[in-house]
Amino acid sequence: MELQEKILDVIRGTHVAALATVGERGAPAVRHMVLTGGDDMMLAGGARIGSDTVAQLRRTPCAGIA
Amino acid sequence: MELQEKILDVIRGTHVAALATVGERGAPAVRHMVLTGGDDMMLAGGARIGSDTVAQLRRTPCAGIA
Repeated sequence: MELQEKILDVIRGTHVAALATVGERGAPAVRHMVLTGGDDMMLAGGARIGSDTVAQLRRTPCAGIA
Repeated sequence: MELQEKILDVIRGTHVAALATVGERGAPAVRHMVLTGGDDMMLAGGARIGSDTVAQLRRTPCAGIA
């Protein structure tokens, strides 16, 4: 099985995931959210425009997922 | 109800939690682990001594939990 197919087997569909971002003073911040993985290898999720999540990702566009 | 009692109602016992740390080049790292909350307001969990989790917390003793 191709590596991409193995990855898709894991990420495809809807999951509850932990999304970690860089918060205040460089400290890690984390919350659970629903992410949906598609055949294009993208994971999509939603957050409010005024949320800490969006502010943190705008400031430091870098995340960890589990 | 006292604030401490409200917190203990949430953290007491065993939970699957996401623990976020500061990983390579300041990027957030996150993994799920079992944490047990006690009456002393501590959350206890275990990680292998040679794990990334332990190395990251030694380097940057700062974490996020969800």
